[in-house]
Amino acid sequence: MKSSERGELMPPSPIRKLAPFADAAKAQGVEVLHLNIGQPDVPTPDTFWEGIREGQVKVLEYSPSAGLPSLRKGMAEHYTSLGMTVDASQVLVTTAGSEALSFAMQACLDSGDEVIVPEPMYANYIGFARATGVKVKPLTTRIEDNFALPDPEAFAAQIGPRTKAILICNPSNPTGTIYSDEQLDGLRDLALKHNLFLIADEVYRTFNYTDRPLRSVLELEGLDDHAIMVDSVSKRYSLCGARIGFLVTRNPSVMDAASRFAMARLSPPTLEQAGILGALRTPPSYFDDVRTEYMARRDLLLGRLARIPGVRVPKIEGAFYATVRLPIDDCDKFCQWLLEDFRHEGRTVMLAPASGFYETKGLGKDEVRFAYVLGLDRLSLAMNALEVALKVYPGRTA
Amino acid sequence: MKSSERGELMPPSPIRKLAPFADAAKAQGVEVLHLNIGQPDVPTPDTFWEGIREGQVKVLEYSPSAGLPSLRKGMAEHYTSLGMTVDASQVLVTTAGSEALSFAMQACLDSGDEVIVPEPMYANYIGFARATGVKVKPLTTRIEDNFALPDPEAFAAQIGPRTKAILICNPSNPTGTIYSDEQLDGLRDLALKHNLFLIADEVYRTFNYTDRPLRSVLELEGLDDHAIMVDSVSKRYSLCGARIGFLVTRNPSVMDAASRFAMARLSPPTLEQAGILGALRTPPSYFDDVRTEYMARRDLLLGRLARIPGVRVPKIEGAFYATVRLPIDDCDKFCQWLLEDFRHEGRTVMLAPASGFYETKGLGKDEVRFAYVLGLDRLSLAMNALEVALKVYPGRTA
Repeated sequence: MKSSERGELMPPSPIRKLAPFADAAKAQGVEVLHLNIGQPDVPTPDTFWEGIREGQVKVLEYSPSAGLPSLRKGMAEHYTSLGMTVDASQVLVTTAGSEALSFAMQACLDSGDEVIVPEPMYANYIGFARATGVKVKPLTTRIEDNFALPDPEAFAAQIGPRTKAILICNPSNPTGTIYSDEQLDGLRDLALKHNLFLIADEVYRTFNYTDRPLRSVLELEGLDDHAIMVDSVSKRYSLCGARIGFLVTRNPSVMDAASRFAMARLSPPTLEQAGILGALRTPPSYFDDVRTEYMARRDLLLGRLARIPGVRVPKIEGAFYATVRLPIDDCDKFCQWLLEDFRHEGRTVMLAPASGFYETKGLGKDEVRFAYVLGLDRLSLAMNALEVALKVYPGRTA
Repeated sequence: MKSSERGELMPPSPIRKLAPFADAAKAQGVEVLHLNIGQPDVPTPDTFWEGIREGQVKVLEYSPSAGLPSLRKGMAEHYTSLGMTVDASQVLVTTAGSEALSFAMQACLDSGDEVIVPEPMYANYIGFARATGVKVKPLTTRIEDNFALPDPEAFAAQIGPRTKAILICNPSNPTGTIYSDEQLDGLRDLALKHNLFLIADEVYRTFNYTDRPLRSVLELEGLDDHAIMVDSVSKRYSLCGARIGFLVTRNPSVMDAASRFAMARLSPPTLEQAGILGALRTPPSYFDDVRTEYMARRDLLLGRLARIPGVRVPKIEGAFYATVRLPIDDCDKFCQWLLEDFRHEGRTVMLAPASGFYETKGLGKDEVRFAYVLGLDRLSLAMNALEVALKVYPGRTA
């Protein structure tokens, strides 16, 4: 018996579908340098493990479906300290940012409704939309413009009767873009004019390499009823495996709906919530160190790439990604070739083909996404290998 | 702005919607005896905490989206030892049984398709169906028949062109029923004849008070392509807060689709998976002790209930629930009244109104679900209170 049609249509992760080739290379003794997935190598802070020890109880019970009250309160205080004034009732604890995104889509859009998303986009937006029957209307951004948001007119041209929301990622995965005040104000005006929800995935908030603070969608004036912020601890505390995220909104109807989706799945992980209560005590120096480290990695990555003929590098202000144009025929072929056929001093590099980040078919074929989640030494080795690879790849175009 | 229509239609949990009344009672100093939710009081085994300590690493990373290979292998061996021969590729690790159920529905049914579910049913089946656009066709079972499955003819009469699956819970939440071999064979024949998936929620497998082994849907002959088994560690190891479950099937198309839904949400909790690797070493004596304890609780509960005039008690063979008929006008009113207005020696009892377990409107109004998750002493106190409550409740009918 075959699965459901939506099961057949569900796209495989553009990153994880390459995993078998990486496994095969490793089985041959090849060192695979992972620049393909946003799994930071930065140590999880000790404060988290303290929280985990404090959370060891006789019976590991369900938490309330909306999360531990102490964590909701702690996060509300945290967000308020950053300038987004919210209270605990406006914070829903979710099983990672993934679930927060899924709840946001389900609570804001019905099956058949449309959400406008700038592309290249985080590939799983397409997956969550597919799973919930929502239609993604991509709005293409260009490497030549440093992936800046299109003009409000371009957005407005995409808005139809079934359009209910705009979804952005700021700082952006996969482009590393941080949106300007003007661009965010433009989105606010659009949301108000066309009565749209504005959902912002801000899980990379602390990875901001500019000297201006990140402006949250929750800080946009007059947008209380429209704004939904999605957050996660995965990147901030190097806790991808913890699966704790947050849906934050001042719209009571959306929070009410999201809470009922949350009731159906009973509880986010309880022990990890105790861990995050600990992690909230992480000293600012942790984040300063992480920021310094990532800026150095970004500079090394972009500096090395700029020296390779035919490579186009945009401005990168945040997150730990770069979507870059390479002189190649087809990024899917290239990334697979790196794993299957290419070795340099016993190593190869795993990258994410950018084709999977575009909903518009045919775009991104000569782009790849780098996640600069390796230390400077290993990142250098990866760039050495890539430099050679681009000289010998059979499908090179420069 | 209002939430989506599906957000508005999402039913609140029939259990959790009473929580504010319980909180108010507690704030008044009243001791609330919780018989309303399947949160066992049995200690989590030490083996789990050993696994958690072993899982403390420098960076808490994503696990593979299908789960840690060691855990998939360990669970496959566990299931095989119980008579359901499966290999690791047929086991998907999920974020609790809730996600396994949700993936099973999405991978087997499209929006608008129908699933037949015996009622009273686990209320969140309705929630997951609502969230995924699946239509639940309830098939009523009766307390007078000890909630046995209806005849195959009654099932067949419900099958229409959009019917794609039957979903059962065995041992059953909320009724405590264990289905007989004849009933399961009848379901197998139906699934084969009408080309339906047979999804079985078997999370209460170890709570079997009969002297015959529980027969899994994965042991039904000729059903490899139709059978999907949903499992969880929540009840077995008293780990409701861990959020680890499993979707197990030999159907490669369904496993493939479920795996792609899993990719979109990246990873189940990593640390908890390490904990379960530890918990798999739990000695059989733990489960023997738990079984003995629950059988004593069941006997006390049913014995005390049988002495109350107007109460009807069915046969209970498994899980730790009993759906019982009480001499009351309306279970929702009664359960709320217990929390708001009734106290006996400074205590009251929290029960789950059975109305929320029926999809057919109007059914279950004089039934409640007991979760016998309290020790014998506290269970006795709860029964003392209930006995008095049924004498003084203004809406009593006997």
